[in-house]
Amino acid sequence: MKALIISADNFEDTELLVPYYRLLEAGMEVDVASMGKGTIKGKHGYDVTVDKTLGEVNPDDYDLLILPGGKAPETIRREPKALDIARRFFDMGKPVSAICHGPQTLISAGLLKGRRATCYKTVAREMKDAGAIYEDNEVIVDGNLVTSRQPSDLPAFMRETMKKLAS
Amino acid sequence: MKALIISADNFEDTELLVPYYRLLEAGMEVDVASMGKGTIKGKHGYDVTVDKTLGEVNPDDYDLLILPGGKAPETIRREPKALDIARRFFDMGKPVSAICHGPQTLISAGLLKGRRATCYKTVAREMKDAGAIYEDNEVIVDGNLVTSRQPSDLPAFMRETMKKLAS
Repeated sequence: MKALIISADNFEDTELLVPYYRLLEAGMEVDVASMGKGTIKGKHGYDVTVDKTLGEVNPDDYDLLILPGGKAPETIRREPKALDIARRFFDMGKPVSAICHGPQTLISAGLLKGRRATCYKTVAREMKDAGAIYEDNEVIVDGNLVTSRQPSDLPAFMRETMKKLAS
Repeated sequence: MKALIISADNFEDTELLVPYYRLLEAGMEVDVASMGKGTIKGKHGYDVTVDKTLGEVNPDDYDLLILPGGKAPETIRREPKALDIARRFFDMGKPVSAICHGPQTLISAGLLKGRRATCYKTVAREMKDAGAIYEDNEVIVDGNLVTSRQPSDLPAFMRETMKKLAS
């Protein structure tokens, strides 16, 4: 089993690192993808090595997509290749887990219309405008889609993400 | 099941937060204990609420003790009550998981003599001097004791910690 995390500089550190370490704990391979190679730096200063550029990613190689929050999604959502990757996961019905500002990438990809989802409170307005059925809950599961609001939701977020992988 | 995390200011953020969220994901209750109430702040700026002072802790209420690293253990190891709590976990054969500088508290409590263990590389000398059988590995399990070296070992550290809880 293989997971893909898409992020960029100014990611919310725990929202990337907690899923990253959790998936490795479960014996999965995890690739981090971003615009360029090298490292990306979190808001709290953690450096994470980039395994692949967005252009190098073949979404068919992965079983799960994780979209952490922070300020990174504001950059990621402007990358057509990132939106294409997200769309391919949805087309194939593969699990996509997005937390905090992470769902912004799914909004830009036009993937949330009619879907139940949550996000960081300041993103709620644009999530509703994108046609999502927004709910203020620690985790919302709708088919392949798992969403949460903030770092304190990480336990519920990862519990539901791990269930998707087991099913 | 209930876990206790003992730490203080300048903890290594991921070494506290990754186990904290992982145990909550598994449905456990988790208390954070420190010298005083309020919050403690990690090296990277994360604030964590303190649930109990060391004096309020009854170790018999818990099934697992976690000792994260960073600079916090330098403070914790000078607290006689923290050493007593660690000794009680060992007396009862309950799981104790310590990472990075976390084992310094166990060194000060005199609990590592003849035990296989690992730690952050700069702690290795004093671990050996305390009579431990030091090994440079991502995780070392010796009876109730689980030890790791650094944040990148967190997947192995939590995998073995979760196994202890299941056994």
